[in-house]
Amino acid sequence: MPDSRAAPAGPTGSAHPSDRAELIARYDAARALSERLAAPLSPADRVVQSMPDASPTKWHLAHVTWFFETVILEALAPGYTAFDPAYAYLFNSYYESLGERHPRPQRGLLTRPDDGEIAAYRAHVDAGMHALAETAPDSVWRRAAPLIVLGLHHEQQHQELLLMDILHAFSCNPLRPAYADLAGAPPPGDAAGAEGALPDAVGWIDHPGGLVEIGFDPERSADGFAFDNERPRHKVWLEPFRLADRPVTNLDWLAFIEDGGYETATLWLSDGWQTVCEQGWTAPLYWERRDGAWTRMTLRGPIPLDLAAPVSHVSYYEADAFARWAGARLPTEAEWEVMAARCRPSGNLLDTGALMPRPAHEPAGEAIEGQAGAPRRMFGDVWEWTASAYSPYPGFRPAAGAIGEYNGKFMCSQQVLRGGCCLTPADHVRTSYRNFFYPHQRWQVAGLRLAADEGISS
Amino acid sequence: MPDSRAAPAGPTGSAHPSDRAELIARYDAARALSERLAAPLSPADRVVQSMPDASPTKWHLAHVTWFFETVILEALAPGYTAFDPAYAYLFNSYYESLGERHPRPQRGLLTRPDDGEIAAYRAHVDAGMHALAETAPDSVWRRAAPLIVLGLHHEQQHQELLLMDILHAFSCNPLRPAYADLAGAPPPGDAAGAEGALPDAVGWIDHPGGLVEIGFDPERSADGFAFDNERPRHKVWLEPFRLADRPVTNLDWLAFIEDGGYETATLWLSDGWQTVCEQGWTAPLYWERRDGAWTRMTLRGPIPLDLAAPVSHVSYYEADAFARWAGARLPTEAEWEVMAARCRPSGNLLDTGALMPRPAHEPAGEAIEGQAGAPRRMFGDVWEWTASAYSPYPGFRPAAGAIGEYNGKFMCSQQVLRGGCCLTPADHVRTSYRNFFYPHQRWQVAGLRLAADEGISS
Amino acid sequence: MPDSRAAPAGPTGSAHPSDRAELIARYDAARALSERLAAPLSPADRVVQSMPDASPTKWHLAHVTWFFETVILEALAPGYTAFDPAYAYLFNSYYESLGERHPRPQRGLLTRPDDGEIAAYRAHVDAGMHALAETAPDSVWRRAAPLIVLGLHHEQQHQELLLMDILHAFSCNPLRPAYADLAGAPPPGDAAGAEGALPDAVGWIDHPGGLVEIGFDPERSADGFAFDNERPRHKVWLEPFRLADRPVTNLDWLAFIEDGGYETATLWLSDGWQTVCEQGWTAPLYWERRDGAWTRMTLRGPIPLDLAAPVSHVSYYEADAFARWAGARLPTEAEWEVMAARCRPSGNLLDTGALMPRPAHEPAGEAIEGQAGAPRRMFGDVWEWTASAYSPYPGFRPAAGAIGEYNGKFMCSQQVLRGGCCLTPADHVRTSYRNFFYPHQRWQVAGLRLAADEGISS
Amino acid sequence: MPDSRAAPAGPTGSAHPSDRAELIARYDAARALSERLAAPLSPADRVVQSMPDASPTKWHLAHVTWFFETVILEALAPGYTAFDPAYAYLFNSYYESLGERHPRPQRGLLTRPDDGEIAAYRAHVDAGMHALAETAPDSVWRRAAPLIVLGLHHEQQHQELLLMDILHAFSCNPLRPAYADLAGAPPPGDAAGAEGALPDAVGWIDHPGGLVEIGFDPERSADGFAFDNERPRHKVWLEPFRLADRPVTNLDWLAFIEDGGYETATLWLSDGWQTVCEQGWTAPLYWERRDGAWTRMTLRGPIPLDLAAPVSHVSYYEADAFARWAGARLPTEAEWEVMAARCRPSGNLLDTGALMPRPAHEPAGEAIEGQAGAPRRMFGDVWEWTASAYSPYPGFRPAAGAIGEYNGKFMCSQQVLRGGCCLTPADHVRTSYRNFFYPHQRWQVAGLRLAADEGISS
Repeated sequence: MPDSRAAPAGPTGSAHPSDRAELIARYDAARALSERLAAPLSPADRVVQSMPDASPTKWHLAHVTWFFETVILEALAPGYTAFDPAYAYLFNSYYESLGERHPRPQRGLLTRPDDGEIAAYRAHVDAGMHALAETAPDSVWRRAAPLIVLGLHHEQQHQELLLMDILHAFSCNPLRPAYADLAGAPPPGDAAGAEGALPDAVGWIDHPGGLVEIGFDPERSADGFAFDNERPRHKVWLEPFRLADRPVTNLDWLAFIEDGGYETATLWLSDGWQTVCEQGWTAPLYWERRDGAWTRMTLRGPIPLDLAAPVSHVSYYEADAFARWAGARLPTEAEWEVMAARCRPSGNLLDTGALMPRPAHEPAGEAIEGQAGAPRRMFGDVWEWTASAYSPYPGFRPAAGAIGEYNGKFMCSQQVLRGGCCLTPADHVRTSYRNFFYPHQRWQVAGLRLAADEGISS
Repeated sequence: MPDSRAAPAGPTGSAHPSDRAELIARYDAARALSERLAAPLSPADRVVQSMPDASPTKWHLAHVTWFFETVILEALAPGYTAFDPAYAYLFNSYYESLGERHPRPQRGLLTRPDDGEIAAYRAHVDAGMHALAETAPDSVWRRAAPLIVLGLHHEQQHQELLLMDILHAFSCNPLRPAYADLAGAPPPGDAAGAEGALPDAVGWIDHPGGLVEIGFDPERSADGFAFDNERPRHKVWLEPFRLADRPVTNLDWLAFIEDGGYETATLWLSDGWQTVCEQGWTAPLYWERRDGAWTRMTLRGPIPLDLAAPVSHVSYYEADAFARWAGARLPTEAEWEVMAARCRPSGNLLDTGALMPRPAHEPAGEAIEGQAGAPRRMFGDVWEWTASAYSPYPGFRPAAGAIGEYNGKFMCSQQVLRGGCCLTPADHVRTSYRNFFYPHQRWQVAGLRLAADEGISS
Repeated sequence: MPDSRAAPAGPTGSAHPSDRAELIARYDAARALSERLAAPLSPADRVVQSMPDASPTKWHLAHVTWFFETVILEALAPGYTAFDPAYAYLFNSYYESLGERHPRPQRGLLTRPDDGEIAAYRAHVDAGMHALAETAPDSVWRRAAPLIVLGLHHEQQHQELLLMDILHAFSCNPLRPAYADLAGAPPPGDAAGAEGALPDAVGWIDHPGGLVEIGFDPERSADGFAFDNERPRHKVWLEPFRLADRPVTNLDWLAFIEDGGYETATLWLSDGWQTVCEQGWTAPLYWERRDGAWTRMTLRGPIPLDLAAPVSHVSYYEADAFARWAGARLPTEAEWEVMAARCRPSGNLLDTGALMPRPAHEPAGEAIEGQAGAPRRMFGDVWEWTASAYSPYPGFRPAAGAIGEYNGKFMCSQQVLRGGCCLTPADHVRTSYRNFFYPHQRWQVAGLRLAADEGISS
Repeated sequence: MPDSRAAPAGPTGSAHPSDRAELIARYDAARALSERLAAPLSPADRVVQSMPDASPTKWHLAHVTWFFETVILEALAPGYTAFDPAYAYLFNSYYESLGERHPRPQRGLLTRPDDGEIAAYRAHVDAGMHALAETAPDSVWRRAAPLIVLGLHHEQQHQELLLMDILHAFSCNPLRPAYADLAGAPPPGDAAGAEGALPDAVGWIDHPGGLVEIGFDPERSADGFAFDNERPRHKVWLEPFRLADRPVTNLDWLAFIEDGGYETATLWLSDGWQTVCEQGWTAPLYWERRDGAWTRMTLRGPIPLDLAAPVSHVSYYEADAFARWAGARLPTEAEWEVMAARCRPSGNLLDTGALMPRPAHEPAGEAIEGQAGAPRRMFGDVWEWTASAYSPYPGFRPAAGAIGEYNGKFMCSQQVLRGGCCLTPADHVRTSYRNFFYPHQRWQVAGLRLAADEGISS
């Protein structure tokens, strides 16, 4: 048997912010955003869990705090005292190496600890983190800093989950409550699209194929951070292909529905068709037909269907069936990434300052100067399903210890999504970012972009 | 085919309180008790639903209000305006004749309307009820009054459910929170029993059998109220039998456990044994073995097992197996009722004034003067499983209209329980009262009392 | 605690046929009938199990044999050697006191032992039984004889099950095969009714009520046998009632369907309505609508709906809903039994000689001379659901040992059916016979007869 | 939208055997093998379906016949008359474009048509195929021939399934029957390994990586046939790696078990660990611990664990966990294929003449002359799980029409296996062959071979 692995780089890679003050300021900002996101919600809203895949707001707020407490403070801050020993059981998500945990489907039963206690927990850990930044010897800080960066990105992932989950919970309430109703700006979760507007025509951007590189490139990174699943950068051979310059829209999807897409077995993967039949799917999640018109449940409450907006809340099965219906296919993640490298990851992402996505008229990911044809809206509207199963990259090494469970153990039966959506914090994503969900899931803001082999005419 | 039924008496029977003021005072008192029971609970506690059989506190508060609104105000108060038309859907429990309703297992997803709106709803309906009492013509009042009495008893049933349900929710929380921790008095849900005390010896009371009458007897009733399922009073032939003078205690149950009761298939009904195996039952619900000692989860939080207290939270399957193990049997409901007629329905019931059960030293159902041997603790400790399936009495007629669904449609596959428990409002029960649950259910405060055929020696 | 029970009478009561030859002849006849019933079936037909409630033909043939082997030969025949020790595991049905057993839902996986081995097993046990009859000392024979009678009745029950189960299996096959197609006679499972005939008008027979006796009466019994669940004979008080003189027919049921019976929630028990919705019931089991006409799957294959025949293959839920729709109710088992005592248990039962039910024109249960109005067709068309839950009679004692599991442990959540059907061997039933099924089950030949309180006009 | 696809090559590729006689001889041989495989089974064995994933022997025999009838005879033989129109419903497996079909989990209920009718069906279609070969015009034959080749490979796949399925059925029978007990030769399903022998030491074969080609190469093919999922041949970039020269053995697996492999959560994929816990896995399927020794259920019945044989009947989850435990990983399918190209696809495959795998001492896939280090036993012992999800190759096109459903619609959530096992007909597999199963499935003869990145020492 081979004698295992060299020392792993860990999910946090080479991130070593030299300036403690700067990192703790990023920490404070990320922590504050979580609380601002929870602010519009009542205590009852914060405890509800509408399905096993989702978690309560309160649980998110506590779990991300537990992560800092367990992975950093208990490991590296000698004087730190745990806020409450019971929390290790209550707020561990899935880390087998960190002990037993509360069953996921029962998170919504935790009416206690109450919101005040969770707030005190957050404050306690925040104080511990500040103390660490102030007092840790350099040798400790060098170990802590990359873990703090990891913790920040972890908290950002839960910010998106918090919004996804509360939208799902509200969609189960016949009153269809709004998370927020904010004049003058699209709320989070509402992909940009002026009411009544029709989508742009789709264009196709060609790529000649060949031997390319994908995966995280520390050389071209602002802060050097990437998850372990984005590493190592590696070569991939691509055949020539073309990629649509924008995601599929609600208008496109209406055409699919009206052409009988949800009733035509031969368009679907076998598992997909079984799901369609068992679940009775006839439209994306959150679409409702009321008095002859389509509406869509959003964080603003139900809104009329916005035809120009990218379709969202579709499963992989639906995305794949749509592409087949359209005579195209989904891109692989390598195809997606080499095209995304042509534009900057800005766009309609969640503005971490204003709690709002950027205005819809802003170019969603502008082309990098000098680049040939760049696709549009690759970041910040919807996560885009790819044809790639979520697998380890060649040479992948999970980090040592508990954080090695962060990504690697999910590398089976899921599909990769790329980009980032209107609920994703703006400084969270990058070109090499790999999101992943099961093919039947659709409560995430997931859409698609078409690809085709070269020589397929539009 | 027979041409159906004569005009039914309805579940409210002959109740016609002549004094409007007195009835509205009873109304106010019952309504206030519900709010006092909810008072110790946080907004998060009030929304949680820990299993499909249970309902959120908030839902209980709204549903009982919906009952008054729908059955009385909308039917009989011409000027009344519904508080919110959506509530008819949200808060209908199971009345098919009153339209579609929110799915029972999803009641816990209703984070909105919030507690304030529910309070406003209650106030709105209370105002409507007061207005009705003040302004209704006599002809209307005569129809309203028995429905109000029914509504009060309905609200009392939900008061008990509210406490049962929150205990279940708290039992699912690893923190095992207490509903209340009240010095100097047993809290609701905690059957009386001084810590460390051992139970009284059991005595047996003989009954000669013969032709007896059971069912509600308006002649001997204080207020003339009974549910339709207690009617009509009718004759039953009994063989000679004997009844234990007190319920089975926790000490008794320990002996059953230690004798391998939960591992001995031949003690159990076939369905019961299957349930034991599938659910892994090894003790009553809420019993936990911690560090070698038994504790019991209660509304006061976990407490050491109180050996003298009646066993509670056992299913019918368990009660039946225990009786078989003990060489005895469960009484039929007729046997229970003729014996209960010998004592007064007082005891350890919920004191509607003080929110507390009566002190434990008070005789729990004192013997009626001049009566021969009367059993003890027949009311107010635990509901007692009987050997009787829940079936209609001979000549049973459900009420006309929606309230005909109140009891009759559940007369299948359930077992009758008699008595009343420490969570049952003190003026709610009576000798003829029939409670009913499925044989596998055990979140209600259910215990048992043994019976035997004559000639069985103790 | 009471110190348990006196020596029980056992399910076989006082049956002591003095003549060994006569009993062994009855044994041979019953055993031969099982084989004749299996004869039309192929090896593949004999192994199939179409649902967990049903068992394969082959399993029935082996299980009834295992009963004789285990309960009689291994207990009372010193020299007897078990055919194959593995069979104790394979062919035990539900006797916990007789050890582990093959899981019920997997009986259909037993392709081995093959039919030849089962035949050899049967022959081996038959030889053992003959040897016992020839050689057992009287003291042993006195113990064996009542167990043999029990075993015969047990085998008869499985003869009916065998036919019920194969009909269910064939109904799952799109080819709808026929068990038998026999010219000139209705096949087993096909309740009598000349094609195209309309049913007789229903008549009502009054009973004055009062104190009656039900349960097995050894004084009036031909052979002294009854199951333990029919004992002891005991008094019951009845209110005056009336009973329909014939079962509900297919024509009656059509009227129920056409009046929206299966779409009207308020006609149904709560559990019943849930079942209707979940299972999509719109007619009795085995009814199919083909090209605008109703057909019914039978042991003869699909046949046009025979309007005059008693409706069959309805659940308790359906029977109860029908009765409510008709403005009537189901009889209790005591009501049924006192009326049945007015006629003889003959009728359309399975002719154990000819494998055929008696011709349809024969009076199905003729009135006993001198009796006032007797109902018709109480035996041999369909089992009739009663309003009575299956509970122990007052003073019920299960037999000691394994056969105590025969009936008693099923006394929960099931309903009693009375009479006997066209698949029931003619000498198997009697007036006091209690059959039982769960309220949702309908693969048995179950119908209903209406009852009503006195003063309800037809 | 792109305007769809050019004319696809179809799964049958360029296969055009010019000689009709030769092809029909291959047809006859393949058809005969199916019948020989079924021959040891009784009619009861042939009808049983032990789980939804498996099918009855009888169904396999009919379904492969239906494929020839539907895809070839009904489409291309003008005079052909279907044997029975009902069979189109009964024996369609999953072809949505060919109409409704019998539900998969109910195939075991088809006791009819009986074996004789299935044999007649097979003969009828065989006659039709012979007639087609004799009389079809060349233009028709050119279309028929590749479909016949496809049908032969389809029948071969079902030959393996038939053996897998009957082994599963027999493993559910407490008698553990043997499919065959054949002196002097390992039976099918029993991977080679002399009793008591210990496995060879594992060696590692290095590959330098670089740009390689995989996928079916018609130039190097004997008969030009490959499934559509093996096409098109395409470039893949590989990093340097090494591959074990033999599969993991039962002895290796014992070490994994003894080291707590099945109890160590951190070795497992998240979905895998959940499956281990829910299913209670503690060893490969068919392993049983009896009286302190391991046995393995095989087509020969239970045998002592053969330590030198490749481990089989493990899921992807188990294979992946084992590799992690061993400090290695599974190979990708490209890695596997470039190594397999170094040896010939012979080995321990099913000898289509003798019904037996080749003797164990024969080199299982000998090295091609002049090739550097070639792995051993790549074909014919066990299917080998790869790290590759089953996805379309770049440029993949499913065939037009119904046969386009053959492979493509399963390209989601499954993993690729490579090689071929002792139940796979010897002329069925090739280097580019892609088998696929869900990660939890283990009734197929699946094992694994370790891989590692370059520089990992053994």
